[in-house]
Amino acid sequence: MSAHRWEMVERGKPLVRVEFEPDAPDTKEVVVEVAGCGVCHTDLGFYYDGVRTKHPLPLTLGHEISGRVVSAGSSAADWQDKTVIIPAVIPCGSCDLCNRGHGTICREQKSPGIDMHGGFATHITVPSTGLCEIDLSRLADVGMQLADASVIADALTTPYQAVVQAEVEAGDLAVVIGVGGVGGYAVQLAHAKGATVVAIDVDQTKLDRLTEFGASMTINAREVQGRDVRDAIRQFAKDQNLRQTEWKIFECSGTASGQASAFGLLTYGACLSIVGFTMEKLEVRLSNLMAFHARALGNWGCLPEYYPEALELVLNGEVAMLPFIERHPLSKINEIFANAHDGKLTRRAILVPDE
Amino acid sequence: MSAHRWEMVERGKPLVRVEFEPDAPDTKEVVVEVAGCGVCHTDLGFYYDGVRTKHPLPLTLGHEISGRVVSAGSSAADWQDKTVIIPAVIPCGSCDLCNRGHGTICREQKSPGIDMHGGFATHITVPSTGLCEIDLSRLADVGMQLADASVIADALTTPYQAVVQAEVEAGDLAVVIGVGGVGGYAVQLAHAKGATVVAIDVDQTKLDRLTEFGASMTINAREVQGRDVRDAIRQFAKDQNLRQTEWKIFECSGTASGQASAFGLLTYGACLSIVGFTMEKLEVRLSNLMAFHARALGNWGCLPEYYPEALELVLNGEVAMLPFIERHPLSKINEIFANAHDGKLTRRAILVPDE
Repeated sequence: MSAHRWEMVERGKPLVRVEFEPDAPDTKEVVVEVAGCGVCHTDLGFYYDGVRTKHPLPLTLGHEISGRVVSAGSSAADWQDKTVIIPAVIPCGSCDLCNRGHGTICREQKSPGIDMHGGFATHITVPSTGLCEIDLSRLADVGMQLADASVIADALTTPYQAVVQAEVEAGDLAVVIGVGGVGGYAVQLAHAKGATVVAIDVDQTKLDRLTEFGASMTINAREVQGRDVRDAIRQFAKDQNLRQTEWKIFECSGTASGQASAFGLLTYGACLSIVGFTMEKLEVRLSNLMAFHARALGNWGCLPEYYPEALELVLNGEVAMLPFIERHPLSKINEIFANAHDGKLTRRAILVPDE
Repeated sequence: MSAHRWEMVERGKPLVRVEFEPDAPDTKEVVVEVAGCGVCHTDLGFYYDGVRTKHPLPLTLGHEISGRVVSAGSSAADWQDKTVIIPAVIPCGSCDLCNRGHGTICREQKSPGIDMHGGFATHITVPSTGLCEIDLSRLADVGMQLADASVIADALTTPYQAVVQAEVEAGDLAVVIGVGGVGGYAVQLAHAKGATVVAIDVDQTKLDRLTEFGASMTINAREVQGRDVRDAIRQFAKDQNLRQTEWKIFECSGTASGQASAFGLLTYGACLSIVGFTMEKLEVRLSNLMAFHARALGNWGCLPEYYPEALELVLNGEVAMLPFIERHPLSKINEIFANAHDGKLTRRAILVPDE
């Protein structure tokens, strides 16, 4: 098997192309020939900001992976030749936490590109636990290739789990702060679940695009700030005959300022979902959760059990991915990382093995 | 009907005894002859700290009330002569929020002593919605008088709702920070639901007393701080064969330092309940909720629907109240407020009409 991957050797130093022999699959493992791997903010955090990976360097990054199973262990033989999404967080599937349905906090969980070599490669060996099968003909019906589905592994499923946790339903008012690679899907997902969605970002282009994909109101956070944001949403809720209570707020910017805005939007019975991550702290009146009888929910990755539901929303056309992604050759990885870091990409990059 | 109440006329100025004629009950209202009314931290906040009541001054404080219905409106006739607890938060019972089970955020809710004249009185006229009937003979079986049950209205039911929301169950490790008038019951309630409970406070006397009432481990926050608290609980969990994940943390101190400690105890899958209130802000890494897939739940009052369950735990002896309360004559209200404010009371004071 001719295989190669791009390894991060040192923070900020060019990623290096390395030939390797894929690990033979263990009984429950599979080898996946990578169709595509999405470039996530988290990868950039490891590469540029020195966020530490759990597996020591050198390490192949990339945790949003789709592909075809080309080899399967004896207990995973059913997966042979199937086209799949690999979950970004792979619970062990057999510990006490997994057995009680808490796979996202499984202490034996593995993430490609963090705990093990990831998806910026031609091949990857992973546990078969939680693989999500994709029907290529249905995917083609919505104009997508297998590589495009890679992004489902994190950018789509992470906000999906947040939307499920927040119990978004028809009649809700949802507010999404930060509508980039993850938040944009939060907008679409909340809309698909029946909510009327307010999108907030500093990037007018992103906001404008989302008006065609689920956002009923947009707020440019450079122009409207502080209490005015709350007042604008209140007025919008009034005009739309929506509730002034129980807003479902999704913080997807992963910035302290976004979190401060999100916390400031708490209404009676509100649910604040913390989807984006930042190391930064912020000052809050935590007691507001009590005074408003509100709740703040964290969300780590997504249970593999939810992947088929999230995928279905893509396949039935309720969530559009094509306008928000673009494929690039894997061989251009260093250039794409730099462009992504410099904010030059307007769509999520998917790297496709090309040699 | 000869009736009087003690009114707060101005912040910090002596409460004044005023004769009054109880309002005749509306069709759905009742007049309750007060048996006792608990003195809560919230009352002291209004009286000493200038926290604003919703009803303008002069106002009778007191929202932990038990008594006997002496007059009932035509639609509330079934309540005539019954012995009851008046909920501290009385939802309207008929709005959209109430109909959907969200009475604690009902915008028409009323609290005695905040929205209307309260329980430091001989009589009070209140909606019959949510009244909780008490069987005096069962109460006597656990050595309690009707006046003693007043404290159930807030000090017991508020942490009860928090314990229900946090889904405390057998095998859980619960941590209660601040074990005064409210937190002490949080310890007993979490214990009654099957959790092993760690109690944290700065007052060794309170901690020592709780070892007989549900606390399996106590930590004096003056002696053990920061990471050492976490380490001590981790070691305790290990020794007790309890989980290192999903701790149920109850912040009942209503202080910024208590909240900071509570937030610092987040484990994977943890549930942090904000039970105590403070106006103070604090600095937190909100993203920890995401990294730990944890949640923070606010808790305002308690749904009247939960009162019978909470009361039952008292009647069946699972929660002890007598060691934590003491009755005083209502006529001593100014002295009792001062003593409570000065920290001279070791038990929750219940004021009983005496003239």
